[in-house]
Amino acid sequence: MVTAPVLYFAADHAGVALKDALRTVFEKRFADVRAVDLGTQGLESVHYPDFAFLAADKVAKSGGLAVLVCGSGIGMAIAANKVSGIRAAVVWDATSGRLCKEHNDANVLCLGARLVGPAAAEDALFAWWTATFAEGRHRERLERIRARESQR
Amino acid sequence: MVTAPVLYFAADHAGVALKDALRTVFEKRFADVRAVDLGTQGLESVHYPDFAFLAADKVAKSGGLAVLVCGSGIGMAIAANKVSGIRAAVVWDATSGRLCKEHNDANVLCLGARLVGPAAAEDALFAWWTATFAEGRHRERLERIRARESQR
Repeated sequence: MVTAPVLYFAADHAGVALKDALRTVFEKRFADVRAVDLGTQGLESVHYPDFAFLAADKVAKSGGLAVLVCGSGIGMAIAANKVSGIRAAVVWDATSGRLCKEHNDANVLCLGARLVGPAAAEDALFAWWTATFAEGRHRERLERIRARESQR
Repeated sequence: MVTAPVLYFAADHAGVALKDALRTVFEKRFADVRAVDLGTQGLESVHYPDFAFLAADKVAKSGGLAVLVCGSGIGMAIAANKVSGIRAAVVWDATSGRLCKEHNDANVLCLGARLVGPAAAEDALFAWWTATFAEGRHRERLERIRARESQR
């Protein structure tokens, strides 16, 4: 049995509209990927760390990747990076989206719905999803981050 | 005795020129702040996590704030956020610089020298430095991040 790759989507109230829009275009373009919506739904105020940890724990334990959306993307990334094994990147365009996969092997992509327009966010998402980790000296740097996580 | 506030600057080889430029303009504008350069110096290839942990440990243990510069800012932020008490924000303009202080009380600012021009980086730095944490619901969210750090 081949398991389909999975991409989790999560957001707070500020990011819910962009999260839903990104999930819709992603599902259309990558029909072979399982897109899983972890919420929130609706505009009621929630706390972004709850959704960051929900998605980050799934990625850390079971693999897959995640997209997190809040007002700036920054709070989501701070929270997600507290989880061992998570490399969460705030991005704002296609170039930052591509580089965070190539150099940092980012497994969580964070976007700010109040700062980045939907087309730029879409380009960032597709650039990240289709890019490949560059290995080499970048691997050594990720191992130093992993070593620090193990010291806790 | 009143101790001057301190701002640490650190970078990898890709960020060293922007780090030095930012430190110079910052020292000129905020002469009452102690600006401490933690390296790297020169263009020899180094590993960004070493400089992220060096600065993040100082901020976490002794207070103060830090500016970290690498190619994208993303690797620096991933590494720095692994340290308990650190809230590291990747920013790319004045608005993201301001918001990461107002909403996330970011104590580490991360900039990408290959993605953000020097004038935009300067605006981001000054916006972050002069902004104030907004408290309120944002405090509750930071407490959830802190609670997660304590669970390790």
